[in-house]
Amino acid sequence: MTNVAAVIGGGVIGGGWAARFLLNGWDVRVFDPDPEAARKMGEVLDNARRAMPGLVDVALPPEGQLSFHATIAQAVTGARWIQESVPERLDIKHKTLAEVQAACGQDAIIGSSTSGFKPSELQNGALRPEQIMVCHPFNPVYLMPLIEVVPSPVTSPVHVARAKEVLTSLGHYPLHVRKEIDAHIADRFLEAVWREALWLVKDGVATTEEIDNSIRYGFGIRWAQMGLFDTYRTAGGEAGMRHFMAQFGPALKWPWTKLMDVPEFTDELVDLIAGQSDAQSGHMSISQMLRTRDDNLVAMMRALKSQDWGAGAIMNAHERQVRSDTGMDIRIEGLPDVSAPLLTVRRAVPLDWTDYNGHMNEAKYLQAFGDATDRFMEMIGCDAAYIATGGSYFTAETHIRHVDEALAGAVIEVRTQVLMGQGKKMHLWHEMYEGDRLLATGEHFLLHVSLQSRRPTDPSAEILAALGRVAEAHAALPTPEGAGRAVGQRP
Amino acid sequence: MTNVAAVIGGGVIGGGWAARFLLNGWDVRVFDPDPEAARKMGEVLDNARRAMPGLVDVALPPEGQLSFHATIAQAVTGARWIQESVPERLDIKHKTLAEVQAACGQDAIIGSSTSGFKPSELQNGALRPEQIMVCHPFNPVYLMPLIEVVPSPVTSPVHVARAKEVLTSLGHYPLHVRKEIDAHIADRFLEAVWREALWLVKDGVATTEEIDNSIRYGFGIRWAQMGLFDTYRTAGGEAGMRHFMAQFGPALKWPWTKLMDVPEFTDELVDLIAGQSDAQSGHMSISQMLRTRDDNLVAMMRALKSQDWGAGAIMNAHERQVRSDTGMDIRIEGLPDVSAPLLTVRRAVPLDWTDYNGHMNEAKYLQAFGDATDRFMEMIGCDAAYIATGGSYFTAETHIRHVDEALAGAVIEVRTQVLMGQGKKMHLWHEMYEGDRLLATGEHFLLHVSLQSRRPTDPSAEILAALGRVAEAHAALPTPEGAGRAVGQRP
Repeated sequence: MTNVAAVIGGGVIGGGWAARFLLNGWDVRVFDPDPEAARKMGEVLDNARRAMPGLVDVALPPEGQLSFHATIAQAVTGARWIQESVPERLDIKHKTLAEVQAACGQDAIIGSSTSGFKPSELQNGALRPEQIMVCHPFNPVYLMPLIEVVPSPVTSPVHVARAKEVLTSLGHYPLHVRKEIDAHIADRFLEAVWREALWLVKDGVATTEEIDNSIRYGFGIRWAQMGLFDTYRTAGGEAGMRHFMAQFGPALKWPWTKLMDVPEFTDELVDLIAGQSDAQSGHMSISQMLRTRDDNLVAMMRALKSQDWGAGAIMNAHERQVRSDTGMDIRIEGLPDVSAPLLTVRRAVPLDWTDYNGHMNEAKYLQAFGDATDRFMEMIGCDAAYIATGGSYFTAETHIRHVDEALAGAVIEVRTQVLMGQGKKMHLWHEMYEGDRLLATGEHFLLHVSLQSRRPTDPSAEILAALGRVAEAHAALPTPEGAGRAVGQRP
Repeated sequence: MTNVAAVIGGGVIGGGWAARFLLNGWDVRVFDPDPEAARKMGEVLDNARRAMPGLVDVALPPEGQLSFHATIAQAVTGARWIQESVPERLDIKHKTLAEVQAACGQDAIIGSSTSGFKPSELQNGALRPEQIMVCHPFNPVYLMPLIEVVPSPVTSPVHVARAKEVLTSLGHYPLHVRKEIDAHIADRFLEAVWREALWLVKDGVATTEEIDNSIRYGFGIRWAQMGLFDTYRTAGGEAGMRHFMAQFGPALKWPWTKLMDVPEFTDELVDLIAGQSDAQSGHMSISQMLRTRDDNLVAMMRALKSQDWGAGAIMNAHERQVRSDTGMDIRIEGLPDVSAPLLTVRRAVPLDWTDYNGHMNEAKYLQAFGDATDRFMEMIGCDAAYIATGGSYFTAETHIRHVDEALAGAVIEVRTQVLMGQGKKMHLWHEMYEGDRLLATGEHFLLHVSLQSRRPTDPSAEILAALGRVAEAHAALPTPEGAGRAVGQRP
């Protein structure tokens, strides 16, 4: 049965939620009285469809169905998750939640995107307050892992547990905020920095651009991976946090920040900031900036994924779940029939795989073929646990023929044929397709080695048996066109 | 003549400065009375030598000479740059600067790493105040681009201009802080967040780990690329900053942050935070954390480099400078003799090029060979400007033989021989070496294409002439061992 989410209130935030659900295979039902809602949401969805599918290294399930509904009751009927992203006014929130609860199931999770209200404020006068919690996202919702999950004391723990489970299955990181507090956690930091930044601009100390540069060329990059405390922990040297605090603590008494009062929010201040921001970035349209932002976020998050750290570790957990859900983690022993070439890669080409020619870069073809080899190794039992015992396959030789181009977002598949597999030797043939279109072939000769001696050795009996089973079955396949050929050699 | 920098005060910051200078080819003279100074600096240098050389895609100049000196006078004599990183006490700073100025040249730049003092405070009573400015770095100095350059009104503009030039040549981004102010710019934001975080921990709202997660899974990644204002500009939609401020402005009046007073810095608070930090990260040693931090920073910064954005744009500018300084941007017409294979890649293997087998990943061999092809294309005139006119080379076929392994940090070279180059066709042979050790060979067949029709076309006459000159010269070279061979084929 397909999962159904209801999105109440479109816009950038509602659209981001819709994208996150849809691209993870959920059906999404939207209610938004704005006649422009479909267009606005379409723009967010376009950006999401561009950036999100290639984020992890396996294809997401088929996209769910998107529908727009004339009433809240229609939108929420049958929904497992209802996300409220209406304007930040408590009376509107209360009216919306009342309509939602009049029509939705008791088991449904009702999450609010509010940054300004506490869950107990939202629950005031509600039919079933226990069903309501804050699920506060960060823009772009389709890329940022963080969701602040804030229950009140009367929110049902069962609903909270289920909410965290659903969010995790969508690739989010649910941060359970244990005490409700104004603005939750992250926005308190954002506000502290925002206020100080306004003072610095107002007093002519720095422009908006100088402030952005002071963040993104320094602590912004550090915070993207370790946050505040771990960064300072490392600054304390081997003595750690206590030493850092002994050094830094006294500075707390210094009146550095001007945050003791709030800058007057005058027209002059708005003009000053908007003018500086135009001077800084007016040469780009907002839609260009959004795409640039997404390009950067995807590239950095995929970099963290390769390190299995921070947001990248969250992405790897999501990928493992998707692999399991889509059968991309099955081993040879789980396959009754291995007579045809085996599906070893199914993924979308990520934004960071394209180059100045506008298509998938040549090295990424080998990346995909290398991933196919890794997956085949895993299928025959040469997985991370086996490699940790000291054996692995090293590639000795590779021959790639680039037949056609692939653009970012294309769903590519690699199918793998074993040309030979015995003893230390493994000779593989990969074919890469987008649909029926052949993109490339890869011929690879690998040797099993001891990671200690770095010399060739026989693999384990289990690997030999699994590889042998596939090699024997594939011996009946015709030799692929192009196998055994040198560069420039024609048939 | 080699450039000389004097580093007064070792430790993490002084060591980071030393690394930045040394690895950019400067000689560094250190004064630090701590008997442990050489050991402590050695640890920082080890980390820097591991992380920094592979940051850009061209080898840095040979490392400079490091020496330790018994007096400040000895260390600063002949130095073009003097960096003071002594403890944050004004009396120590004054005494140090007096000794520095008694011995250094008038043209030398004297930068202070202080985060707490204004340049005018440092200049008080100085022999030549005009020579002194704040150059406030961010940890790790060998990776973070940002340096806050803060002159006082009496600092010489000539010295400031020269300081910015030197910092840029080291790969830094000098942020010229135009008004001196306590804590400069970035640390004011850090302090605002730090204070608010202390309150949240003290009041039991969030642990150190929850706070770090609220940053690194959300706005930390955004800030790493666009900072504060550009991020909010995009949040305003096509209406931009003014619209964002109209929406967000009223929230400024809400009493969200607790920053109106400063938390009492008691033993209980220190214990609470240090204890939570131990629970969060005590399973890693600080040196493990530092390496993890550097791995993450290198991977993210290189991701931004591929996008030519933020810190990555700074890195690309640095790389262009290094290429120019080391002759890695010369065209064919600038080479009197092209009879030998041409040096097309000279670089250190970056941290993000290694895989679970602990060595350079197979796809990165093709990355390096692809970079060699790109560089050769540039040498014959097929550069970014030419590609923008609608022509480029596409790789049709590749054959790689992996002969030996390479570890992160290894300086590799690729030399390129033209096997054939006429009309649309280009047949290249790359050999990759670490010193005398052959790591791999790459045979590549490319076609010149129209980027509009995506069909083969002839390149420009200029490219044909340059390619022809090399092809003719290389026709006299013996056919390389392994050329024209298929996978698994033996000589």
